[in-house]
Amino acid sequence: MPLLPPALDKLATLLSRLPGVGKRSATRYAFHILGQPRDYAEGLATALGELVDNVRFCVDCHALTEHEQCDICRDPTRDRSLVCVVETVTDMVAIEQTGAFRGLYHVLHGVLAPLKGVGPGQLKLANLEDRLSTLSATEVILATSTDVEGEATALYLAKRLAPLPLETSRIATGVPMGGDLEYIDQNTLSRALAGRRAFAG
Amino acid sequence: MPLLPPALDKLATLLSRLPGVGKRSATRYAFHILGQPRDYAEGLATALGELVDNVRFCVDCHALTEHEQCDICRDPTRDRSLVCVVETVTDMVAIEQTGAFRGLYHVLHGVLAPLKGVGPGQLKLANLEDRLSTLSATEVILATSTDVEGEATALYLAKRLAPLPLETSRIATGVPMGGDLEYIDQNTLSRALAGRRAFAG
Repeated sequence: MPLLPPALDKLATLLSRLPGVGKRSATRYAFHILGQPRDYAEGLATALGELVDNVRFCVDCHALTEHEQCDICRDPTRDRSLVCVVETVTDMVAIEQTGAFRGLYHVLHGVLAPLKGVGPGQLKLANLEDRLSTLSATEVILATSTDVEGEATALYLAKRLAPLPLETSRIATGVPMGGDLEYIDQNTLSRALAGRRAFAG
Repeated sequence: MPLLPPALDKLATLLSRLPGVGKRSATRYAFHILGQPRDYAEGLATALGELVDNVRFCVDCHALTEHEQCDICRDPTRDRSLVCVVETVTDMVAIEQTGAFRGLYHVLHGVLAPLKGVGPGQLKLANLEDRLSTLSATEVILATSTDVEGEATALYLAKRLAPLPLETSRIATGVPMGGDLEYIDQNTLSRALAGRRAFAG
């Protein structure tokens, strides 16, 4: 005999699939939602629907947007000669919050990880060269993480972009090795951007 | 200029109202949901809708159910002479999982807390005496928490039920003082139930 109503258990099971959320926390969340005024659950359901219906990838840089192009790609004041390649949207947000970068981004949505079956075809790379040509970019900053996979991805990109008439740089080693951009403090991230060096790969 | 699409930010804001979830975790959850196949978000939205549409309080014991009466109240094998009064549905689930109790429950959905404006009128108490008469209950186990408010609520109930022709008992002090029933291990909870004593007021 189930102790909790199936609807509550179903929601808890789904919530327990969120990162770092176990079944006990998920059940606690479900109880909390049930204890709130009805419009909280309805608001959540609506927000979930809007998320999957409205949010898409920018056709140029693959950041998240509710339009065809993201706000940064559409912003005429950004420096179009400078493109910063990042792994994830959260990495892009972390860099953007430093205020130290006024160029455009290119979000890979992953890193090369052959053991997990992630090759160049699984990253958002198909339009990269065309985009750099169209923008007449003069420099690409490789701002993937400094862990093994991020380094390998930067190396791959540096080699792939070598034939193009532009400079390729890597964020400085101000970022601790093995770190994840999302969690670095803004000063360190600013210094890593300012101290970037030509790719020696 | 917002860095994240409004729909993602809206969902993160709502999720950050869950207990123990900050804005950073909430944003992480929103990104995770966005990265899953579309039917995960749709499943969550559906489950939220079902939760608020289908789950209600049992008319007798005020536990959660999708029917008029909960499964325990409808179960003919339960001992109807024994009623266990608990603060919350999660406390009821914790007791039920010990397997040490075969009677019925009565869920208060709170404890007396005059400083927070919670008096007897705010608890699910209106039908308690009628219910005990209808059931011809011989014993009421007061299984509110052993913190100050839980003790005060038990004392209030013992006095309120004193005129009725039944015994009033309190779970044994096997439960550490200041503890919350939901997080006690099952052995301790079983022993507390078995070692219950007549209310000394």
